[in-house]
Amino acid sequence: MPAASEDDLIDAVRKVLSDEAPGVIVPVGDDAAVVEPGRHHVVLSTDMLVEGVHFTLDTISAQDLGHKALTVNVSDLAAMGAAPRYALIALGLPSVAEGAWVMELYGGLREAAGDLGMTIVGGDMSRSEQHVISVAVVGAVAKGRAVTRSGARPGDALVVTGTLGAAAAGLALAKSPPQDVRDELTTDAGREVVRAHLRPAARIGEGETLAHAGASAMIDLSDGLAIDLHRVCAESQVGARIRVADLPIAAAAREVADALRLDPVRLALGGGEDYELLAAIPHEVVEPTRHKLAERYGSSLTEIGEITESGVVIEDDGKERPLERTGWDHFA
Amino acid sequence: MPAASEDDLIDAVRKVLSDEAPGVIVPVGDDAAVVEPGRHHVVLSTDMLVEGVHFTLDTISAQDLGHKALTVNVSDLAAMGAAPRYALIALGLPSVAEGAWVMELYGGLREAAGDLGMTIVGGDMSRSEQHVISVAVVGAVAKGRAVTRSGARPGDALVVTGTLGAAAAGLALAKSPPQDVRDELTTDAGREVVRAHLRPAARIGEGETLAHAGASAMIDLSDGLAIDLHRVCAESQVGARIRVADLPIAAAAREVADALRLDPVRLALGGGEDYELLAAIPHEVVEPTRHKLAERYGSSLTEIGEITESGVVIEDDGKERPLERTGWDHFA
Repeated sequence: MPAASEDDLIDAVRKVLSDEAPGVIVPVGDDAAVVEPGRHHVVLSTDMLVEGVHFTLDTISAQDLGHKALTVNVSDLAAMGAAPRYALIALGLPSVAEGAWVMELYGGLREAAGDLGMTIVGGDMSRSEQHVISVAVVGAVAKGRAVTRSGARPGDALVVTGTLGAAAAGLALAKSPPQDVRDELTTDAGREVVRAHLRPAARIGEGETLAHAGASAMIDLSDGLAIDLHRVCAESQVGARIRVADLPIAAAAREVADALRLDPVRLALGGGEDYELLAAIPHEVVEPTRHKLAERYGSSLTEIGEITESGVVIEDDGKERPLERTGWDHFA
Repeated sequence: MPAASEDDLIDAVRKVLSDEAPGVIVPVGDDAAVVEPGRHHVVLSTDMLVEGVHFTLDTISAQDLGHKALTVNVSDLAAMGAAPRYALIALGLPSVAEGAWVMELYGGLREAAGDLGMTIVGGDMSRSEQHVISVAVVGAVAKGRAVTRSGARPGDALVVTGTLGAAAAGLALAKSPPQDVRDELTTDAGREVVRAHLRPAARIGEGETLAHAGASAMIDLSDGLAIDLHRVCAESQVGARIRVADLPIAAAAREVADALRLDPVRLALGGGEDYELLAAIPHEVVEPTRHKLAERYGSSLTEIGEITESGVVIEDDGKERPLERTGWDHFA
């Protein structure tokens, strides 16, 4: 039965996905899924991960990859102040014979869906030369509460959740010569940065809290603080000033960067994949919001600069210079 | 500016997409799109088209490809009885240098969005070895009105909209030796089947009408009548009997099949890509529904058989035989 193999694989995937979930009227397996949106606005985003561009099979397990693929998509919803609800997964696979890899990938996707409080409601599978994972996510946000990239106002404080540079240090470590990797992977810092690279978190609660606190603009740090800050400034038609001394660089990132002779500031500004949130918020709410994030989620919030009229600059040792768009370009 | 190229291409794409549309609160260009779902249930589906698997660049223009990519996704919504509303487009591209190709593709996507009454609200772009187009669509259906594949009941009539086999004949013609192609492409039938292959339509109004008429199960014919009928029967835990003599094979498909020495019945059963709707409906509503489709959309509706207790069979010249799952398997 030549036609059975694809349907068989889809049947196997359906078995690992839970069919019963709040708001799901028709789950995975039909022409389309049907869901109940409630009274909220619906928030939509999509991201594609391609083998050799976003990941290589020898440096990430199928389970970690599945977990990460869903999480980084949801990070875009968090950056709107939205809560994730549903996901669609389209896969490109070099061969249907990879059933075990696909099931492991779906194990990670399902684990992430559980962590994120959402449901996978549909998908597609196709042959392709590289492994491709295209995820579309659906979230909900109270009407009028979505935070875009375009509302930042001069005078707003620039804040960032969590720490920066760990995922980039983890990627640098994974790409280093074997001897360096062997030495560093035995340290706590080495393990921490590799985990940051393989298992990023999406700051959903933090995004909702920042939205409620009155964030005027917000973005998730997927391509690096520098390029993502440039994007906010361009969309909001404002400038920004940030301070090197205030960047919340992860201690583990500093330690691994030292060992690999890399500049930790460069990792924090241009490394990408932190999936922390960068937000512009009124100065007076920085402190109360910091307390809320610490109390509710154990997350830190750091003021790294402010929104200005024009020009994107970075202050280092009392001197100001233009901040280059040193983010990661998929096509570079 | 190495980081500018991707953002530049995204900016160019945003310019061809209309930002103002009913229900769109935050359009393309932010972390995620925000839309207003109204009081309906939300219907979600995704499909991935891969170069070398679903299309080749030398047989379809970027504009036709864009139009087709959105239309075939929406066909899945039509098969639920839903109306399309929003779309997300994730692209994998061998090189960012293909700006002109991407803009032409988006021209076709936008044209289809206009034809289908929907809005493209987001997307992603990545490098990849092959061209990959992953589309996710969001539709709306009145609560409780979605038609799944799983409700068919013994005794229901099996009906199909439009005609079958033209797209498969078009594909066969495109793959034929140059002399055959030259001869056939000068005929009306040749042009018609090639157009059916390149520019399929999604049967949205027909799907809504069939849903209202009380369809118990519905599917769109993407992989071929045989395999798609097997899917409905498996999901509904029923059987079916169809009759060769009643298949609405397109006249142009018969003509081109004759010229290429192909079996038109085989094209109709196993060719795929017709994107017509196959539905199970109560016998007594076949006639009134046929009239409604003709009047409202100029579409035909043909009764090709009925739902039975078990076994999927085809009747030819008075003899019954099992209907093979001769549909197209992406991995075959």
